[in-house]
Amino acid sequence: MTSTCAEPVRLGLLGCGNVGAAFLALVDGDAEAIAARTGIRLEVVSVAVRDATRLRPEGISPAQLSGRVTTDAATVVKDPNVEIVVELIGGIEPARTLVLDALAAGKPVVTANKELVAACGAELLSAAEAAGVDLLFEASVAGAIPLVRLLKESLAGEQILRLTGIVNGTTNYMLTRMSEEGLGYPEALADAQALGYAEADPTADVEGYDAAAKAAIVAGIAFDADVVAADVYREGISAIGASDIEFAHRLGYEVKLLAVAERVDEHGSTAVSVRVHPAMVPTDHPLASVRGAFNAVFVEGDAAGELMIYGRGAGGRPTASAVLGDVIEAAHHVREQTRARSAMRRRPVLRPISALRTQYYLSLDVADQPGVLAAVASVFGEHNVSIRSMEQVGLGSEARLVFITHTALEADVQATIAELAGLDSVERIGCVLRVIGPDPSGP
Amino acid sequence: MTSTCAEPVRLGLLGCGNVGAAFLALVDGDAEAIAARTGIRLEVVSVAVRDATRLRPEGISPAQLSGRVTTDAATVVKDPNVEIVVELIGGIEPARTLVLDALAAGKPVVTANKELVAACGAELLSAAEAAGVDLLFEASVAGAIPLVRLLKESLAGEQILRLTGIVNGTTNYMLTRMSEEGLGYPEALADAQALGYAEADPTADVEGYDAAAKAAIVAGIAFDADVVAADVYREGISAIGASDIEFAHRLGYEVKLLAVAERVDEHGSTAVSVRVHPAMVPTDHPLASVRGAFNAVFVEGDAAGELMIYGRGAGGRPTASAVLGDVIEAAHHVREQTRARSAMRRRPVLRPISALRTQYYLSLDVADQPGVLAAVASVFGEHNVSIRSMEQVGLGSEARLVFITHTALEADVQATIAELAGLDSVERIGCVLRVIGPDPSGP
Repeated sequence: MTSTCAEPVRLGLLGCGNVGAAFLALVDGDAEAIAARTGIRLEVVSVAVRDATRLRPEGISPAQLSGRVTTDAATVVKDPNVEIVVELIGGIEPARTLVLDALAAGKPVVTANKELVAACGAELLSAAEAAGVDLLFEASVAGAIPLVRLLKESLAGEQILRLTGIVNGTTNYMLTRMSEEGLGYPEALADAQALGYAEADPTADVEGYDAAAKAAIVAGIAFDADVVAADVYREGISAIGASDIEFAHRLGYEVKLLAVAERVDEHGSTAVSVRVHPAMVPTDHPLASVRGAFNAVFVEGDAAGELMIYGRGAGGRPTASAVLGDVIEAAHHVREQTRARSAMRRRPVLRPISALRTQYYLSLDVADQPGVLAAVASVFGEHNVSIRSMEQVGLGSEARLVFITHTALEADVQATIAELAGLDSVERIGCVLRVIGPDPSGP
Repeated sequence: MTSTCAEPVRLGLLGCGNVGAAFLALVDGDAEAIAARTGIRLEVVSVAVRDATRLRPEGISPAQLSGRVTTDAATVVKDPNVEIVVELIGGIEPARTLVLDALAAGKPVVTANKELVAACGAELLSAAEAAGVDLLFEASVAGAIPLVRLLKESLAGEQILRLTGIVNGTTNYMLTRMSEEGLGYPEALADAQALGYAEADPTADVEGYDAAAKAAIVAGIAFDADVVAADVYREGISAIGASDIEFAHRLGYEVKLLAVAERVDEHGSTAVSVRVHPAMVPTDHPLASVRGAFNAVFVEGDAAGELMIYGRGAGGRPTASAVLGDVIEAAHHVREQTRARSAMRRRPVLRPISALRTQYYLSLDVADQPGVLAAVASVFGEHNVSIRSMEQVGLGSEARLVFITHTALEADVQATIAELAGLDSVERIGCVLRVIGPDPSGP
């Protein structure tokens, strides 16, 4: 069916920043090649920008925008000439209203807007369902990584058990520098800021908010669940020091910020656990080898076993490539008067973090004096937390105890930590990391 | 659209071995769950086997087959009750005739048959096109790894530059044991045979025939090219010794058997290079971390950048999961009276291996006497092959020279090797490996 239709499918573009300009450059530059490969000729007929005088990235010249640029995004949505709306503005409003208006007008929407999909995914999918048109959002999670299509099509018949992702490039870049060059957290952050990977206010990345939004989207796709960013348990990487990573290496682990979406069957009912936290990952686990600003999502399915998909999680051109894949699908559907299959999203039972059972790494700054270990160990024991290994690092005022536990209940570990914090001999609770992988001599 | 249709889509299954039995177990056991997730109810109404008395894997009982089993595959294809044919026999005939008959009868076909798709892919796709029905073959390459959908849908608009895959689990298992435990090739092979990963006659795996068939399929998908297994340049791993892997480690490489499909633009025309050979892969490359019997395909696209997809390359249940994904797509199309989009395959210009430009690793067993290195080095120089590093390993009758070259033309390297083989002081040409990655101080 690669007969090239002479009549183009006409696109309205909302936003022309890094991703928008890269998308426009791809479509303007490669329309002929795309038509030859797919049978679909694409044309961007209208582009909404905030400031029409601003210079655009990716070599988009004012002449290239001339005659199709506006500062009124609503006119693009309403334009009878526009068949598909591509929303690359970001943020919740006005993006949400524009997307709902486009869907209500019977126009398919392709979006790369993580905040919007994480906050309003179920609402937008319902609106698309009601209008009978596509809402596609492959680029909204992990950039160029085609996770949505993997889960919804390739694994359509599969029962997904768990997804574990490295979905924030900034923190993975920082943790890679810390791991490979022994940098401390402040130096790694300064370096990421100097390279433009981290913002001046790095909170969204380093405290896990960005990853939590992506975890919500991932859980939504995997479990047809209405999960929003605020449902996601969240911890960042700012408590991790060079010594924690050194200790991880010695035990055969890398430290990674993970987004986890997991199906939990307990007592005959099904719940979903969605969380973002740093974790120790065994060095022979495929996620341990994901370096720098790359992203990856590790999928465990009932029949398919273990799969992983790896790629660039951000960047104008990689994200624009994912948008283009969705636009081509929507364009085929427009021509064939059909649409993507979608599933209803139900509000799931969310399992609280306190019910998690895993292994833990803890570091404690302690007074270097006799009896400290006994006191600390007895607190672990009282709360049913069994210790797998312990080591003292440093001496005197620098003394630190590091522990790895056997598999334990999060609630018990938190109670242990709370009681440890009250001991006179414990000066500071350092870093607490969940540990991925088999418990080598579990109870 | 997850309203469960009461009317099932009826499947005819050809073959009930490891994959067939796993597929039957999935559909029989999970029909309800699959219907809830996808809106499609599946039913296997007819199963063709070679020997109806044989016991089946995956706990398929004779009672479970009763009333729907036959030894005449043609009757399954002709059965008016069968809407989709699932071909899991393997081999070229009778599979090819059965698939063509099914397509001619207007029935979509899903196949996991690597030999068939590698040898007759273009013919079968033309037949499907002519009949206006689906021919889907996700499971025919790299088991559960959803490479076909990645390339045809997620990267629909993307210009694919190169695919580099680890697509044979047996050889990757052997190379992993050799790398991690220092095993020699004979011990690694014996171990793979003991575990059932390698056949008593391991030729298809260790000499790269299996990988070459998959490389042909991969190249066909990536470049809409009619490439058959016989087009693929092929070398296996049987010449690799423990010392080659040790040397690779010292230089920061792992040794992997790679299948490469590459688009080459030269002098204004486009050619395709398709090859299977062992190679040195930098340890920080994602493919270097693919261990054991796992498979992975690394994709380089013009806009998407670098992507990798990783998973189980074989095994009944993972492969059955990939078949199931295709069957659900075909079933949606049957219900919607539509079909998958496909592209015409053209016979490509194939670039011969002699035109490859890369770096090379060579090991030579030599007489340990003065002047040998000078004689050897002058042969490299005469053929324009520039040496990046050289080292002598061992002494006396065990003396070996190992070289890494700068980027050179394969034809020049082959001429170098031919001339070296004629030198009195060279006792044996050992292992020749292509080296992946940047040339650190290339000319």
